[in-house]
Amino acid sequence: MIPTELVEWGASGSLIREIAEYGARCAAAVGEENVFNFSIGSPSIAPPPVVGETMLRLLQTVPHERLHAYAPAPGMPEVRERLAGYLKDSFDVPYRAEDVLMTNGSSTALALILRVLLARGGRVLTPVPFFPEYRFYAESAGGALTGVPSEPDTMQPDLCALERALEGDVQAVILNSPNNPSGAVIRRDRLNALASLLESRQEQYGHPIYLIADEPYRELVYDGIEVPFLPAIYRNTVYCYSFSKSLSLPGERIGFLALTPGMDEHDALHDAVLGVLRAYGYLCLPPLFQLTAAECIGRTSDLSIYRRNRDLIYGALCEMGYSCIHPDGAFYLFFRAPGGDAQAFCRRAMQEDLLLVPGDGFGCPDHVRLAYCTAPEKLRRSLPVFRRLAEEYHLG
Amino acid sequence: MIPTELVEWGASGSLIREIAEYGARCAAAVGEENVFNFSIGSPSIAPPPVVGETMLRLLQTVPHERLHAYAPAPGMPEVRERLAGYLKDSFDVPYRAEDVLMTNGSSTALALILRVLLARGGRVLTPVPFFPEYRFYAESAGGALTGVPSEPDTMQPDLCALERALEGDVQAVILNSPNNPSGAVIRRDRLNALASLLESRQEQYGHPIYLIADEPYRELVYDGIEVPFLPAIYRNTVYCYSFSKSLSLPGERIGFLALTPGMDEHDALHDAVLGVLRAYGYLCLPPLFQLTAAECIGRTSDLSIYRRNRDLIYGALCEMGYSCIHPDGAFYLFFRAPGGDAQAFCRRAMQEDLLLVPGDGFGCPDHVRLAYCTAPEKLRRSLPVFRRLAEEYHLG
Repeated sequence: MIPTELVEWGASGSLIREIAEYGARCAAAVGEENVFNFSIGSPSIAPPPVVGETMLRLLQTVPHERLHAYAPAPGMPEVRERLAGYLKDSFDVPYRAEDVLMTNGSSTALALILRVLLARGGRVLTPVPFFPEYRFYAESAGGALTGVPSEPDTMQPDLCALERALEGDVQAVILNSPNNPSGAVIRRDRLNALASLLESRQEQYGHPIYLIADEPYRELVYDGIEVPFLPAIYRNTVYCYSFSKSLSLPGERIGFLALTPGMDEHDALHDAVLGVLRAYGYLCLPPLFQLTAAECIGRTSDLSIYRRNRDLIYGALCEMGYSCIHPDGAFYLFFRAPGGDAQAFCRRAMQEDLLLVPGDGFGCPDHVRLAYCTAPEKLRRSLPVFRRLAEEYHLG
Repeated sequence: MIPTELVEWGASGSLIREIAEYGARCAAAVGEENVFNFSIGSPSIAPPPVVGETMLRLLQTVPHERLHAYAPAPGMPEVRERLAGYLKDSFDVPYRAEDVLMTNGSSTALALILRVLLARGGRVLTPVPFFPEYRFYAESAGGALTGVPSEPDTMQPDLCALERALEGDVQAVILNSPNNPSGAVIRRDRLNALASLLESRQEQYGHPIYLIADEPYRELVYDGIEVPFLPAIYRNTVYCYSFSKSLSLPGERIGFLALTPGMDEHDALHDAVLGVLRAYGYLCLPPLFQLTAAECIGRTSDLSIYRRNRDLIYGALCEMGYSCIHPDGAFYLFFRAPGGDAQAFCRRAMQEDLLLVPGDGFGCPDHVRLAYCTAPEKLRRSLPVFRRLAEEYHLG
């Protein structure tokens, strides 16, 4: 009576979260300072002070019948208005309040839109490497995900490979830039070429092919590199955003989905996303967090810490002989597993209380992900462990 | 490509929320004080002071890496421990932390468990009247809901009718006591008889038949009437709870699902619920609200206001000639629609800026629901409108 696949979904869980929770148990046993838990992308940098100040002020000043009441399912009108206005001013796309639907973060937005687009089957493409839960969201929605190879040194999408994979059953392409786990930021010329490709294939196949922009890391970018805004390049883009990383608020589960004004099937997509939300029993997001997000959009945590962490760990690991993708954004370092087997390397590292995530789930079983959204001091203290492992594996 | 049924789910929405949002628009137009919006069960009573104090203290004292971090998917261990301990001490059922799964309120818990139990089809029964979204949750999960008549004057479940409806394809029975919309509290002798019936049918059909206890109104009960704790009466009970009503926090979306220790398929149910949550992209509940709930469980808003409201509106409407179910709990009055057509009566009332919900969705097209979780003063000021309508319909 209880479907086996549902049980397995829950029992298997997300590998990243399993490793992170193992790390928390280790920390409880041997002391937090003795575990190098670089497994999860949960920012250890504090939110900017404005976040805490805003929450305190809202709690103390907003009448309870507004602050603690049910919000309308798509979000509070004034919040949707503010977010649409911010997007419009920042990126010159004429968003209106009715284009913005509040969601419990970017991954929820993504799961919702895949549930809508893949309900009748079909495939979604995404360049490798990709966030492992993409596959799960696609399959549990009734469809499938195909990872498409990227250029190995830069992790820029390989347009020829995308072109070959883009058959008639493809409903959408997910792009995640800055990328988790590689830190790559997709360049504008690639995006322009991809948009042309999608436009011609839409015409050929006679149905829309959506781009899904998964952009929780938009603000986390270094060296002044541009993160082009996809909805301005390709009309049929569904934009998914989260405040988890920019404001260091992953636990609050606050983000949104924005439909591009004038996109194909705009109103049907809007209603279908709301319909799925309703079936899930998720009525609305907490007003406290909606109002905080609306007030704080555009602000960020102190990202200079991430840049210094990036410089430190990328520099040190390259110097030791690790083969690393240069991260232009996000807070991950993706490097080739010494010995070529990421699972084996991560198990070995775990013996040294160094927790990393093997690249298998990301579509790269020979790479390893290190999350450097951590205290710089801890990153520095982990270097001798990396050096010992480098020697053991005869790197450099 | 976008399934029509999903679009319709979203486009139709919940009637209650539509009326409530219409009321909000009216209030903006003619002034909040001039609209008698008794449509939605959103408490207008303030949360108890301890809630605001707790949230402020947590915001000011809990380190950001705990307060704003991802929580484990089933909930924070210390929160699950605390809630299990509270249930154990209060109801003498040996709950453990691993029985408790945090959810975005009781309706989400209910939607999740129906998604698990009805994934392969089948039916769920519930006594009429029932919360309209039950039907939607059952159907969108892949199954169906059958409303079973209750005794007309008391709205106690009719056991003979339940017995007739309980065929082999029934996976679960939902009980909601105190009841939305009737305010009825199911008596212990009925529950004992129902438990015996379910036990014998489980044996006969060779599969578990679950009771789903939907209890957001457990604390909202008057005149010292007992609300028996279902998991202590029937082992195969899934207990769904929300802090929305007891703490006046509907917007926070905080509640839990508790599996009864020793129930059939306990571990499979646990993992399948987590699996569905994972597929939805809902990782966890905000630590701020989890910790607040754990600290405030057992506390309530000033419920004496609801009792006074109940006495006021029940007494006044009966005296005017309306035929009302006596509410033993919750904060709703359910009365026969003058003229016999609830839709027509509600439309007429709307012309007087009096917003009520017709009973169609609750399974009673000849009844009307009035939510009296409102300021007593407003309730009092609405009485002349009710009197006018009573005269117009020749009541009394």
